[in-house]
Amino acid sequence: MDLMSRIQSALDHQLAQAHRPSAPPRLLAAMRHAVFPGGARIRPQLCLAVAHACGEDAPALTDAVAVAIELLHCASLVHDDMPCFDDADIRRGQPTVHKAYGEPLALLTGDALIVMAYHALARAGVHHPERLAGLIDTVCTGTGAPDGIVAGQAWECETHADLGQYQRAKTGALFVASTCAGAQAAGADPAGWRSLGECLGEAYQVADDIRDVMLQAEELGKPAGQDASHGRPSAAADLGLVGAVRHFRRLMDAAVDSVPPCASRAAMRQIVLHESERLIPRTTCDRITGERHLWAPARTPAHRVVA
Amino acid sequence: MDLMSRIQSALDHQLAQAHRPSAPPRLLAAMRHAVFPGGARIRPQLCLAVAHACGEDAPALTDAVAVAIELLHCASLVHDDMPCFDDADIRRGQPTVHKAYGEPLALLTGDALIVMAYHALARAGVHHPERLAGLIDTVCTGTGAPDGIVAGQAWECETHADLGQYQRAKTGALFVASTCAGAQAAGADPAGWRSLGECLGEAYQVADDIRDVMLQAEELGKPAGQDASHGRPSAAADLGLVGAVRHFRRLMDAAVDSVPPCASRAAMRQIVLHESERLIPRTTCDRITGERHLWAPARTPAHRVVA
Repeated sequence: MDLMSRIQSALDHQLAQAHRPSAPPRLLAAMRHAVFPGGARIRPQLCLAVAHACGEDAPALTDAVAVAIELLHCASLVHDDMPCFDDADIRRGQPTVHKAYGEPLALLTGDALIVMAYHALARAGVHHPERLAGLIDTVCTGTGAPDGIVAGQAWECETHADLGQYQRAKTGALFVASTCAGAQAAGADPAGWRSLGECLGEAYQVADDIRDVMLQAEELGKPAGQDASHGRPSAAADLGLVGAVRHFRRLMDAAVDSVPPCASRAAMRQIVLHESERLIPRTTCDRITGERHLWAPARTPAHRVVA
Repeated sequence: MDLMSRIQSALDHQLAQAHRPSAPPRLLAAMRHAVFPGGARIRPQLCLAVAHACGEDAPALTDAVAVAIELLHCASLVHDDMPCFDDADIRRGQPTVHKAYGEPLALLTGDALIVMAYHALARAGVHHPERLAGLIDTVCTGTGAPDGIVAGQAWECETHADLGQYQRAKTGALFVASTCAGAQAAGADPAGWRSLGECLGEAYQVADDIRDVMLQAEELGKPAGQDASHGRPSAAADLGLVGAVRHFRRLMDAAVDSVPPCASRAAMRQIVLHESERLIPRTTCDRITGERHLWAPARTPAHRVVA
């Protein structure tokens, strides 16, 4: 099964666990709406790929970690879209949860998805007790205070925020959790995989800033220009468009270089290069900077990685 | 150390873990505002008392479980108070989090407290890996979908809700988690402690309904009449005031009877009776029903239980 199919199936299975007659049906529907259809599912793909690279030996636990990471990401999108933050009407080409189900259910949907993430970890972790505490620690670190995505979002409520700190927390933290927890799910030391998550997370945020400036609402599937209209820190605003694209390329180069020695190193590098191309195509980077970048010269990017 | 001091100290210690220079300071302040000063802390007291009754052998883990339960309760209060639900200005005698820090930070404060709850469990659970998965499963069941407090709150967004199901989820679920996880923290089987949590949880909700009808805003420290003004299911509305008080008494009797045989059975019963008196004083019950209830005839209620 390819990575995306595996993730979709694991998410579907997890959401089905909550489908009991005792549950409020609109909450269940809103939770499903928040998770399907998904976006690129880059975080859980990364998680699965790292677990595979580390000699994955506990597939159900790896699935649970990937599911947890994606549920936490979806929860953050639901809450970020709400009127008190972005007040977004559209997400992934469909109405946001609060537009489809109202604000009260959107608030509860985010909460329920957060709890479900930890429930998934606990249920799978019962068969691997020696890995569970470390996994949950990693996932919590990427999510809460002081340095997780919730803290990252909270920097938007401060009068002064350091761009690097804001990006590391708002986006980088959950990428780091994805790579590190992927390793831990396979019983491996997460330390060597931290840098990959950091580089990809920052690159992802920088790419988002760049696209936020460049693209129209139709192309993104969400309103563009949100950063400027909300006065948020942005790499494109700080460094200018050319500077931001150069920074993006440096981060992607560093991500490729950071992949630790392992049997799947070549495949992991291909995932990074493919993700880079998906975020900001090389031709677009070249056009903006007026330079020709030299990575990945001969190989064909893998469009789908087979686990 | 008495139970209340132990809980306050453990909560204080947990919140301090997030106080790093890298954290957004207003989020940290809002989290503290949501947790201190507390209410009766009945759920974590119950958790500690059950762990003690089960021969507590891992105090740091018990502390973490009590902290997690209380953080999840506080998170639910922060989100329930927000304008899209109760739109409450006052909680525990001080401005609600969204009144003091704004809606965006209130939303994130609830999220961060939920994550912190699981972080506390993971950090303490590293020394008791064989207990961790079960503990987190119990806490998640009491919190999320299909039957936890988030699902309970979500019943308010349905057009039809069964009163019993609503109350079991909205309030009962976290009481059940408190008693069961208290037992699990001590390595004991939680099954025998479930009924105590169920009875207390339902009694607590019924008492809240009764007080919501009876008392003025000044006496509660929060706006009264919320159930009626929000059209929520309410035992007092369903059964009438006298019927609701009789139901409350039956539940408290059942709670007392449910305490499993253990060395601390007498002390546990005293906690229940003390809580009953705190929720709706016996003299008030007698006045409303015109009956004289016969529980706890001779013993003086313990005003504070020493662990």
